[in-house]
This record gives sequence, structure tokens and C-alpha cells, in this order.
Amino acid sequence: MIATTPRPPYYAVIFTSVRTDGDHGYQEMSRRMVELASQQDGFLGMESARNEVGITVSYWRDLESVKKWKEHMEHKIAREMGRSVWYSKFRVRIAKVESEYGFDKNTM
Amino acid sequence: MIATTPRPPYYAVIFTSVRTDGDHGYQEMSRRMVELASQQDGFLGMESARNEVGITVSYWRDLESVKKWKEHMEHKIAREMGRSVWYSKFRVRIAKVESEYGFDKNTM
Repeated sequence: MIATTPRPPYYAVIFTSVRTDGDHGYQEMSRRMVELASQQDGFLGMESARNEVGITVSYWRDLESVKKWKEHMEHKIAREMGRSVWYSKFRVRIAKVESEYGFDKNTM
Repeated sequence: MIATTPRPPYYAVIFTSVRTDGDHGYQEMSRRMVELASQQDGFLGMESARNEVGITVSYWRDLESVKKWKEHMEHKIAREMGRSVWYSKFRVRIAKVESEYGFDKNTM
């Protein structure tokens, strides 16, 4: 679903990837990483979708919390598996959200 | 596919949305907006995926080109249709990409 984030500024990590064929434990690790990320200090939310390309955007309070999550041991192991098994290609972009706006039919 | 973007800094517009039921001209307009965006000055690339939630990230040279695209008349009309017909909910986040890294099995 759409993440509910605080007033900017905060950080977005845009992870775009192309998967290799087969699961090889990917779904399970993916679920675990969402669970683990959401327990980290500074985690604000996450959005995810996949067709030919997968996009996961996670939101963080500051650059410090982004860096801490990158250094998390279990996440590091998952990223190693990502390079060796699950992804044929990926790109990570770290961006500072400067402004945001939105629309919700239910609250009109 | 994964966008090929220049060395940061540049801008990302993260558009997250939930669709209403039915097409109502959405696919056609969506294709047209991708075509139109890619013709704009400052456009760097676009990535898109949709499951329950849709995520489209477009990349731009600077804030100026993001603003110009927002003011484009045909895009404005499409956004009005978005609010009235196609989306039950959306969120737009404008973010400055500060760093990026990636991986490609084919270039290892």
C-alpha cells in the first residue's frame, strides 16, 4: 500500500531490480527483509511492486538510519544472495524527499 | 526496464497510486504520458511497476524540468482525469538523488 510518511525532508531508497528465473528462497527472504526493515530505528514506510522490473521504495528519517540499515548484518547477507542468486540487475538510488503531495478519494 | 541515469545529483519523482476499477482510457493515456514525458527537456528516464499499488519513478535533470513537466498542459489534463476517474489514491514525492550504485550480472 501507499506509505504514510511525515512532512519532508526525509529519505527515500529507490531499489529497482530485474530478477533471475526461479525462486531460490527469494520470497521468504523478501518477506523477512520487509519485517526486519520495519523494525529499524528511523524506518518510515515501504512501497513495492513488480512486473518485468521490480521497484521497492523504502522511506527513512535521515541518512544515518539509511546507512545503519545498509550495515545490518542479516541485510548484508541477503544483499550478497541478491548479487549471486536472485537478481540479474539492480540499481539503488538514495534520495532526499524535498516535497510531497497527494490525493485520497475517501477523504474528499 | 531499469533507467540509465547520469551521475547524481538529479531528481526523482516517485508517483505511488492505487487505481479505481476498470480502464476508462487509462492504458492509452498512460502510454501517451510516458511518450510525452520522454520528449521533455531534462527527462532522464522512467521505471514503472504495478500490483495492488503502482509505482512510477521518473528521473529529471533538475527541479526546473520537474516543474515544467508538472505545468505541461496535456499532463495537467491527464492529472485531472487521474483525480476524477483513474485513481482512488495517490502520492507524489519529489526527491533529490544524492547517490546511487548498482549491479549487472552481464557486465561482471
